[in-house]
Amino acid sequence: VARPHVVIVGAGFGGIDCAKELVNEPVDVTIVDRHNFHTFQPLLYQVATAGLSSSDVAYPVRGIFQDATNVRFRTGTVTGVDFDAKRLAMADGTDLSYDTLVLALGATTNWFGVDGAAEHAFPLYGLEDAIRVRNHVITQFEHADSDARLLEGGALTFVVLGGGPTGVETAGALTELFGMVFAKDFRRLDVGAARVVLVEMTDAVLGPFSGRAQRHAREQLQRRGVDVRLGERVTAVGPDSVTLASGEVLPTRTVVWAAGVRANPLADVLDVEQGRGGRIVVTRDLRIPSHPEVFVLGDLAAIEGAGGALLPQVAQVAKQSGKYVGKHIARDRRGRTSGAFRYRDKGTMATIGRNAAVADLPLHIRLTGFVAWVAWLFLHLLYLVGFRNRLSVLVSWGWSYLTWDRGPRLIIEPVDVTSPAQANRPER
Amino acid sequence: VARPHVVIVGAGFGGIDCAKELVNEPVDVTIVDRHNFHTFQPLLYQVATAGLSSSDVAYPVRGIFQDATNVRFRTGTVTGVDFDAKRLAMADGTDLSYDTLVLALGATTNWFGVDGAAEHAFPLYGLEDAIRVRNHVITQFEHADSDARLLEGGALTFVVLGGGPTGVETAGALTELFGMVFAKDFRRLDVGAARVVLVEMTDAVLGPFSGRAQRHAREQLQRRGVDVRLGERVTAVGPDSVTLASGEVLPTRTVVWAAGVRANPLADVLDVEQGRGGRIVVTRDLRIPSHPEVFVLGDLAAIEGAGGALLPQVAQVAKQSGKYVGKHIARDRRGRTSGAFRYRDKGTMATIGRNAAVADLPLHIRLTGFVAWVAWLFLHLLYLVGFRNRLSVLVSWGWSYLTWDRGPRLIIEPVDVTSPAQANRPER
Repeated sequence: VARPHVVIVGAGFGGIDCAKELVNEPVDVTIVDRHNFHTFQPLLYQVATAGLSSSDVAYPVRGIFQDATNVRFRTGTVTGVDFDAKRLAMADGTDLSYDTLVLALGATTNWFGVDGAAEHAFPLYGLEDAIRVRNHVITQFEHADSDARLLEGGALTFVVLGGGPTGVETAGALTELFGMVFAKDFRRLDVGAARVVLVEMTDAVLGPFSGRAQRHAREQLQRRGVDVRLGERVTAVGPDSVTLASGEVLPTRTVVWAAGVRANPLADVLDVEQGRGGRIVVTRDLRIPSHPEVFVLGDLAAIEGAGGALLPQVAQVAKQSGKYVGKHIARDRRGRTSGAFRYRDKGTMATIGRNAAVADLPLHIRLTGFVAWVAWLFLHLLYLVGFRNRLSVLVSWGWSYLTWDRGPRLIIEPVDVTSPAQANRPER
Repeated sequence: VARPHVVIVGAGFGGIDCAKELVNEPVDVTIVDRHNFHTFQPLLYQVATAGLSSSDVAYPVRGIFQDATNVRFRTGTVTGVDFDAKRLAMADGTDLSYDTLVLALGATTNWFGVDGAAEHAFPLYGLEDAIRVRNHVITQFEHADSDARLLEGGALTFVVLGGGPTGVETAGALTELFGMVFAKDFRRLDVGAARVVLVEMTDAVLGPFSGRAQRHAREQLQRRGVDVRLGERVTAVGPDSVTLASGEVLPTRTVVWAAGVRANPLADVLDVEQGRGGRIVVTRDLRIPSHPEVFVLGDLAAIEGAGGALLPQVAQVAKQSGKYVGKHIARDRRGRTSGAFRYRDKGTMATIGRNAAVADLPLHIRLTGFVAWVAWLFLHLLYLVGFRNRLSVLVSWGWSYLTWDRGPRLIIEPVDVTSPAQANRPER
């Protein structure tokens, strides 16, 4: 009897944790992702701000499942699903059949229809995004250093849109990069003139956090020099400016878009019911109602929480729903039923910078400052995949903490995989 | 009185060591490089073979000179020199005046006019080259894993051209990557069928080394499965094959070009006398004869050694000539003369892989095997710029040695600095 083939599309938190539950179960698992690595998204902002190297936050998927003989991996881009034939169409023209399908594709940037955003703002969702932000930010300083007049054009104004954890962490890390490192790297520049503006639509940063955490984060950001604009929206992004709802136009060449995500666009072509942000509507056990052999999890799924509102698109939900679906599939194979998915909120945390973070934990434990920061460091190290990555991140963090230095502030230019000869333009 | 302006073009070994000699001397120094980082070229092959992360072998130039108030840096590409006006033309349309010029631009790949080489072979001279090779090599395995028929087309045949240290080290590291890591990552593939072919024109690998080192390197390569072809040349490189002088055609999609370098092409447009490989002819104190205020050093300079032959284009020559030129300029300022440049050969080493290296040291000390390997590790760590990089490389090497694992075998796709919106194609 052939073992059923479980195909998991997406090697993010949800897909990986789902596959882990299926190791050594009587199924054949294939994980498909367009990258050959899993990305630890919570630390992407540190890659973007030259605190960590790209290889610190990425881990080869094959490495994770080296010892799991029933788990395979292939790189590839899924372009469509034929639910009747139970077959995935791949971008390279091939297809892939499944018995059970797990859609764990995650999300992508939501531009909310803001004029010019897709063309000019920098998303910060994937590893390439983070490298692109790092290259761009350092390049702005290099340009301003060559030609100080660029400062008037906003070369050193950095606008971060969205006051959620990603926005807060990015804004905090940018000011730290400028004050701790660039002030020494660019001695001729008045690095103090560099501005970080954090624009948030609501009247508080870190919306879902406790009031205490919100106030602490805002105070810490402001103390570190971040210009926090609450109750403000962006109406247009241009190549050298951003327009706010208040009418103000900020000259800037750098708009980091941390304003929100929407479901991966594959959801739009599947002919399935979609909820808010394009997320796929699922049953209480995370299946597509019309296709019970298809599970959807994490950021891609419109999962209702206890109160009826959709669960947030965060790592915890992805991991827990991934684990749940994996167990569900394994139980199905043994003829056992599974109850509805229940999300356990283990709390949430965000870091503002050196010695400063906020953590809202269960049992109404609210941490701020140094204690929260140490807890944040510890938990992020713990959840990083791969001991080697943990060691490397620990070394980087220890080094930065002790020396006030940063590591990889490198502008690594376009790398074209397909065309080696590109490398051969005359150099310099 | 204005301090004279020394412009150093190129932040490789020569340029950096030259600038170090001028720290706190009564001159203003500007280093220009098209990258904002110094690249530790001897370890590039480890980036190409997923042993080290790109940030391990690159160090920001500004970081090196953070405490040197008279040393500035700017990113930029020099396109020409007006010797009469003492002015550099830059690619961005600006110019840069100098009183003393140091040309330390290094070299670029020499294709020796081989048909198709510039289009289809992969150079391994800069950091982007190394990342490109890494991406390409892993991609070949991913493709072959998806479609085993590709093996017949040479998808897993890797041809390294040139039996010098770079070629030997790359060939050795590739076999190790395949045997140690990919054999576990790609369980469905017959990784043993992957071939590494090292093609060398002369009748020995490691030409300038002792006979003992040459034999040891060749034996170690062969024992590790490298197909060493001596006395063989390449006559054409195509997208899916390489043609040898013997008439044999090897199907392959990967030709790593370690066959040689020539002077940076800027040398060709300066209207100065050039020697072999386009290198600029210099006086015994490394000036351009017709322009005594212009020094040339390292790979770019045709420096005669004691026997009359040109010195090799290696790190040692670049470092020593850089240091010499820096001291020379400092002495000039104090009205002191300088003798001719004298190169001191401190020996040469190359590593084949785990526990295997060769080292020819002064006083006829010849090391092979484990001892040479430890010496190689130690010296490369010592010469790496930046304690943080040393720590990170030490951790990587320690990890790989103890676990037989490799780190960053990541395919990180094209990063376009100029166009953020590229990131926003629908994902997957």
